[in-house]
Amino acid sequence: MPSDAIQALVFDVFGTVVDWRGSVIREGEALSRAKGLAVDWGTFADAWRSEGYHQAIARTRSGDEPWERVDVLHRRKLDELLVRHGISGLSEAEIADFNRVWHRLTPWPDAVPGLTRLKSRFVISPLSNGDFALLTEMAKHAGLPWDCILSAELFGAFKPDPRTYLGAAKLLDLAPGQVLMVAAHVGDLRAARSLGLPTALIPRPREHGPAHPGEPPDGSEFDFVAEGFEDLARQLGA
Amino acid sequence: MPSDAIQALVFDVFGTVVDWRGSVIREGEALSRAKGLAVDWGTFADAWRSEGYHQAIARTRSGDEPWERVDVLHRRKLDELLVRHGISGLSEAEIADFNRVWHRLTPWPDAVPGLTRLKSRFVISPLSNGDFALLTEMAKHAGLPWDCILSAELFGAFKPDPRTYLGAAKLLDLAPGQVLMVAAHVGDLRAARSLGLPTALIPRPREHGPAHPGEPPDGSEFDFVAEGFEDLARQLGA
Repeated sequence: MPSDAIQALVFDVFGTVVDWRGSVIREGEALSRAKGLAVDWGTFADAWRSEGYHQAIARTRSGDEPWERVDVLHRRKLDELLVRHGISGLSEAEIADFNRVWHRLTPWPDAVPGLTRLKSRFVISPLSNGDFALLTEMAKHAGLPWDCILSAELFGAFKPDPRTYLGAAKLLDLAPGQVLMVAAHVGDLRAARSLGLPTALIPRPREHGPAHPGEPPDGSEFDFVAEGFEDLARQLGA
Repeated sequence: MPSDAIQALVFDVFGTVVDWRGSVIREGEALSRAKGLAVDWGTFADAWRSEGYHQAIARTRSGDEPWERVDVLHRRKLDELLVRHGISGLSEAEIADFNRVWHRLTPWPDAVPGLTRLKSRFVISPLSNGDFALLTEMAKHAGLPWDCILSAELFGAFKPDPRTYLGAAKLLDLAPGQVLMVAAHVGDLRAARSLGLPTALIPRPREHGPAHPGEPPDGSEFDFVAEGFEDLARQLGA
């Protein structure tokens, strides 16, 4: 893959740029201390992510449910999980604020320095199923130096729908082959690759917590495999 | 207008943030030197802007022409203007590059320091008829510290179409009353105001060149009038 064809890099966000699980646990534990709760926040975070996000998005993708903002999907599952974990006594404002933990996720340590290097040579943008406002607020909170914000919300469809990858290239006024998709997840990269985008795999073995490092994914089918964004910048000459 | 309701500021760009006329003249003069041309670049810039942009957008708004990217509108007029001014001998690559002068416009001196101050307190974004890629590239070139890019292209309609102002508020997940529209042009601000957005007028008396300062606009109908973005930041407590 000649990196001189690449003009822009678009990034998956949840898991690839930010540590969603660690961030939810941290804010959950702060809530426990403030409210005197006893909750297994790792279990809570995993269910919120798998049921509230992945399963909800799969229902939209299959046509069983209409497209909705991720904030709405997260909130629906949060209300369920509060009951399941026997958490009561939170005000509406407190629940709404906790739902916005997804706007305040903490980047992996290499993310901001790596993006800063990559930005010096390429246009860099998220390409996430997260809402436009969520991604904008997250960038402000975490200091992610994006050049622009590309959200699935702009296309009314969730990744891995082709409209998201092709829509991103079109808005950037680039051919698919000039836009490098960067993600920790092979499914995302395979969808992008099938549409002509070059791909970079960044394994994030701690995404599901230190107790579940999982199998390291096989990156041989992708154009780049890097240990983080600084390593990717080095490989791309940025 | 209580400024504590305002969460985000959206900015007109051509004329409000950047000096399009001075930038086109400067690049035109460089082209004259490189190619040995004799061209009145002020006249050229004014025609490019009024015929290639304002009149073209008016035809789209009236329904006479379908929506097209501003890059395309600019290029169509550029081809005409090269003939009108007797400019020949430019390669296709040179013409394409000159058309991209609109991606490389120079900010007014207060723009970057003012936006940097405003960004510390508010979400800041362009809200321009310029294409998404044009605005992204301009920001990178000029160091405009936007939090995100909002272009009329996202809505398939040009300002002052209501879809642009209301679409921007919706993507930011804010009510119209929480989004301050900032512009040098009263028509843009009146359209925003009629939809419930608060408004700030920033007169730019040099937009049409030092020889045509024009009448200072009456700002009494708007929520803020400021002499530049640093003055606006001061008035908003940022």
